[in-house]
Amino acid sequence: MPPRTNFATMRCPVARTMAVVGERWSILVLREAFYGATRFDEFERNLGIAPNILSARLRSLTEHGVLEKLPHAGGYRITEKGRDFFPAFLALKRWGDRWMTDERGPLIVLEERETGREVTAPPVLASNGQPLMPEHVRVLPGPGANSAIRTRFPPKDC
Amino acid sequence: MPPRTNFATMRCPVARTMAVVGERWSILVLREAFYGATRFDEFERNLGIAPNILSARLRSLTEHGVLEKLPHAGGYRITEKGRDFFPAFLALKRWGDRWMTDERGPLIVLEERETGREVTAPPVLASNGQPLMPEHVRVLPGPGANSAIRTRFPPKDC
Repeated sequence: MPPRTNFATMRCPVARTMAVVGERWSILVLREAFYGATRFDEFERNLGIAPNILSARLRSLTEHGVLEKLPHAGGYRITEKGRDFFPAFLALKRWGDRWMTDERGPLIVLEERETGREVTAPPVLASNGQPLMPEHVRVLPGPGANSAIRTRFPPKDC
Repeated sequence: MPPRTNFATMRCPVARTMAVVGERWSILVLREAFYGATRFDEFERNLGIAPNILSARLRSLTEHGVLEKLPHAGGYRITEKGRDFFPAFLALKRWGDRWMTDERGPLIVLEERETGREVTAPPVLASNGQPLMPEHVRVLPGPGANSAIRTRFPPKDC
């Protein structure tokens, strides 16, 4: 078997993102943190996860700066980097609620505390107000692009 | 070792989502599909992925209805379910571009073909126009909630 690819050393930021959250339990640990869990036993009970796996996930998320260990209480708090993942979590939840539920619909709904408005990931819209689809998008090298990316996705001619 | 948890049979739609895209390569296979790849050798070359792993990922994404096999050409096309994952992909990309790039910035930028406008995941805003954070959100049982969820996240009293 070839060595396991290390996603953290890939250049693509999406690949690096998967090095942080691409282990399946990681998103669910983050879900619990977003929903207010901080203590090990809260994560353990709410997730029904084996303690050794939970330890490994908490350690990895802490090493990646998504969670931080609380100095005294022994729990975990979500960092700014972790909180900034909330929109991506909402986008994953939106897709799951649409495509991966049974006919009864979502298990969980989120609402803004102050207003009671339902919170869902905003749709991605094209300039004409319609949903933006992959085929409406041109892929271009960004400021961090290397020559391989510039060859594959040439900058516009004009 | 305990048996590997089957995320597809969990009730939470986010967990089920991770059963589909939670293997790290899956998101990158989807990335390639969004960027126009259809043929096995395109995925293989662009991802630098071992053929046996790519085969397994393509098979899994096809079984989950995210890709479909093209009848004649032998390639893969993204389905409506897969296309609907584009906003979640953009949200993951946005986080990766912010937190997982070096100082040069994103490798790839996306723009709307018709207008040249940059395409990024829209921010999630609170009613006051500020970014919505997890602590601004109340977690409530949805229409598909079971008693465990209703106990953990009681519906509002009023």
